Amino acid sequence: MKVYLDNNATTMVDPQVVEVMMPFFSEMYGNPNSLHKFGTATHPALNKAINQVYTALNAGDNDDIVFTSCATESNNWVLKSVFTDLIVNGDKNHIVTTEVEHPSILATCRFLEEEGVKVTYLPVNENGIVEAHTVKSFITEKTALVSIMWANNETGMIFPIQEIGEICKAKGVLFHSDGVQAVGKIPVDLQAVHVDFLSMSAHKFHGPKGIGALYIKNSQKLTPLLHGGAHMGGRRSGTLNVPYIVGMGKAIELATTNMEEKITAIRAKRDRLEDALLELSNTLVVGPRESRTPNTILISIRGVEGEGMLWDLNNGQIGASTGSACASEELEANTVMLAIGADNELAHTGIRLSLSRFTTDAEIDYTITHFKSAVARLRAISSSFAIQKPTKGGEVQECELHH
Amino acid sequence: MKVYLDNNATTMVDPQVVEVMMPFFSEMYGNPNSLHKFGTATHPALNKAINQVYTALNAGDNDDIVFTSCATESNNWVLKSVFTDLIVNGDKNHIVTTEVEHPSILATCRFLEEEGVKVTYLPVNENGIVEAHTVKSFITEKTALVSIMWANNETGMIFPIQEIGEICKAKGVLFHSDGVQAVGKIPVDLQAVHVDFLSMSAHKFHGPKGIGALYIKNSQKLTPLLHGGAHMGGRRSGTLNVPYIVGMGKAIELATTNMEEKITAIRAKRDRLEDALLELSNTLVVGPRESRTPNTILISIRGVEGEGMLWDLNNGQIGASTGSACASEELEANTVMLAIGADNELAHTGIRLSLSRFTTDAEIDYTITHFKSAVARLRAISSSFAIQKPTKGGEVQECELHH
Repeated sequence: MKVYLDNNATTMVDPQVVEVMMPFFSEMYGNPNSLHKFGTATHPALNKAINQVYTALNAGDNDDIVFTSCATESNNWVLKSVFTDLIVNGDKNHIVTTEVEHPSILATCRFLEEEGVKVTYLPVNENGIVEAHTVKSFITEKTALVSIMWANNETGMIFPIQEIGEICKAKGVLFHSDGVQAVGKIPVDLQAVHVDFLSMSAHKFHGPKGIGALYIKNSQKLTPLLHGGAHMGGRRSGTLNVPYIVGMGKAIELATTNMEEKITAIRAKRDRLEDALLELSNTLVVGPRESRTPNTILISIRGVEGEGMLWDLNNGQIGASTGSACASEELEANTVMLAIGADNELAHTGIRLSLSRFTTDAEIDYTITHFKSAVARLRAISSSFAIQKPTKGGEVQECELHH
Repeated sequence: MKVYLDNNATTMVDPQVVEVMMPFFSEMYGNPNSLHKFGTATHPALNKAINQVYTALNAGDNDDIVFTSCATESNNWVLKSVFTDLIVNGDKNHIVTTEVEHPSILATCRFLEEEGVKVTYLPVNENGIVEAHTVKSFITEKTALVSIMWANNETGMIFPIQEIGEICKAKGVLFHSDGVQAVGKIPVDLQAVHVDFLSMSAHKFHGPKGIGALYIKNSQKLTPLLHGGAHMGGRRSGTLNVPYIVGMGKAIELATTNMEEKITAIRAKRDRLEDALLELSNTLVVGPRESRTPNTILISIRGVEGEGMLWDLNNGQIGASTGSACASEELEANTVMLAIGADNELAHTGIRLSLSRFTTDAEIDYTITHFKSAVARLRAISSSFAIQKPTKGGEVQECELHH
C-alpha cells in the first residue's frame, strides 16, 4: 500500500480537474487575447473558472482575483510592489510579518531588508500563532504592510486573521495574508474578514502545480510584478494558462462544495490517526486540535530524529515530511518548532502528516501500524532516547534528555 | 475547414507533449522537493526535460536554464533584476532596447523609466530590424543592459543577434534577447552566439501555455524575481510545475529534431501562400523572405482595414491576427508597421499569418481562396480604396491615398 500524507506540500490533481483541463491543450488551444474564434472559444470556460474562485472565497464584485503562476509569485508580488508603491515611492519603511511564514515571504523580506526596508518578524506563542494584540503593538506610522499567513503549513495552526484584519483596517495599514494552507481546507469568506491581499495556490487543493491567484480587495492599486501585454486588466501579464485556470476553478469548487461535510470526514481520520500515535510514550503534537486545519498533524517523537523517521516511513511507502517541502532539502531543524520554543533536539524530531479528502481509512490503519513499528525500530537505535527509555507515557516536556 | 494561422500568438499543444505530461497530474504528483518517493519519482522526467532544453539550445554545462511561468516572467526578471543589481545597487543607469519589442519588454522599460532609468528605444530600419552598428553607437559607460529580440513576433524578421552579442561582449555590457519567436522556429545555438540571458516560452512551439525559461550564461548573478523556497538552485522559487516542465522538454525536442527538414516544409507552405496573396494588387509583405522566421507573413492590403479583414477571415474559420495577441484587444495601429515608416492608414491594414508544422497544404489552399475573396469584398466597400481602384499591380508605396 502506498500512502500519501504530505498534502500540505502538494496534492494529487483530482481526476475531475484533469478532465476539465484536457480540451484546452490540443483542441481549444487559442490565445484568449486573440480576436478570432480559436481565442474566444476559451472565454466561457475562463469566465466559469473566475466565477468559481469568486464564489468559493465569497469575494465581492469590486474585488479583483488575478491568476498567477503560484502563491510564491503572489507573495513576491505583494511584498515587492508594496515596497515600490509605499516605500520607494512613499514615506513608509516598515513591514510586519512572522517568524513562521513560508520561505516565499521570509526570503522576500530578507531581500527587502537589503534594500533598506525594516522588517519585524513577530515570534509565535507556544501554540505557534501570533496574537492580534501582538501585531497591533508593532504597527507604527511607518508600517506599509502586515503580512501574516492564514494557516501554518507545518502545524496547521490557524491564525486570528479576522482580528488582525480589523486592527490593520483601523490602523489604515495594508494587510496581506498567505492563504495557501487555508483556501480549500477551511472556510475563507472574504466579505466576513478584512484582508487587502490574499495569496493562494491550486496545487494545495487538488488543482495543478503552477497556477495560483492573488485576491485584491476593492481593485486597489498594486504595481504589477509582471508588466507586459496587459492581460488580466493589466494586473498580471503573460499569456493565460487556460487549462490550469479552468482546472483551478474546478478544483476550488470541488474543495469548497459541501465543505463542512468534507472537513468532518477528514478531521475524523486525522483525529483517529493522531489519537493512535499519541499512545506512543514521549510524543507531542503541536497545537490544539480544534485550532488547526483539519488535515494536519505535526508530531514530535522524543528520541526519533525526523529525517530517520521520514526514511523509515518512505521505505514503508508512506510519504510524509519534516516540515515545508520548500525547504526540505536543507535538513535543518523545524523552524516552527524552534519558534514555539522547542529545544534543538526536539525541533529535529518533527514529522508532519497531512491528509487529503482522498485519504482512506485503510491508509490510516496502515500508517498507524507502520508508524508505531518505525518508532520502536528507531528508538531502539537512538542513543539519546536509550537513557530515558524507562519513562512511560506522559508528554515530552516531562523528559529530561541527556546529550 | 478550420485553419489556424496565428501560431506566433500561441500554438496547439502537440498530442505527444500532452501524452508525456499526463502521468504527472494524478499519478506521479509528488512535490519534487519532497524527500519521499512520491517526490523523487518525478526526478528522472525532470532531468530528462532539462537535458532536452540544454540540447535543443546547445547550452553549455556552466550555463543555467531556469524554468519560469512564461517569457513575460523571464523578460521582467532580467530587466527588473538588472535594475536592482546594476542600477539601484550599482553605478549604471541606462538600458538599450528597440521600439518593436514585445509588450513585456516595453511596459517593463516604461515602468523602469518611472523609477529613474534611462531607456533608449532604438528605431528599426525599413525591414523592421535594428542593425548591430546602431546598437553599438548607443551603448555608453552607463549602459547596464542591451535587450533586443531574436525575431520579431509581428514580421518574423530575424535580428542580427550574433553581431549584437559580439558588440555587447566587447563593450562589457550584459545582453538579453527575447527569443520567444526564435526558439523552436529557427536554429538557436547558444555556444555560437554570445547572449547573457535568453527568454523563451513553450507555448510558441507546441508546448503548454504557462511555462517558459530563462537561459543564464555562465550561471552569472541575477537577483531572483521570485524569492522563496530556493527551488531551481535558489534562482526561481515556486513549486515546480512538473507536467509542464516535462512537456516543455518534449516540445523543444520535437521542434528542434530534424529542424532543417521542418523549416523547409513550413517555408514551402508559407512561400506558396505568400506568392498567392501577392498576386493581389496593392499589397506589401514586410521584410525580405529569407530574413524572416520561416512561418510568418505580415501582409498589408491597401484599402482593407486589418480588423475588418480579421473578422472576415474569422467568419471563414481562419484564425489570423493584426499583430501581437498580447495587444490585440487594443485595436491600435500595428506598432511595427509604424516603426518601419508606414503611414497610419497602412499601419491599420496589417494582417499576420503565422503557420506551424501542423499547417496542411489543404489549409493553405483554402486560405488563399478565402483571403482573396475577402479582399474583394472589403475593397468593394472601402471608401479610401475606391478612389484609387484603377491602379493595377505594383507595390503599395505607389498608391496615393486620399482620406
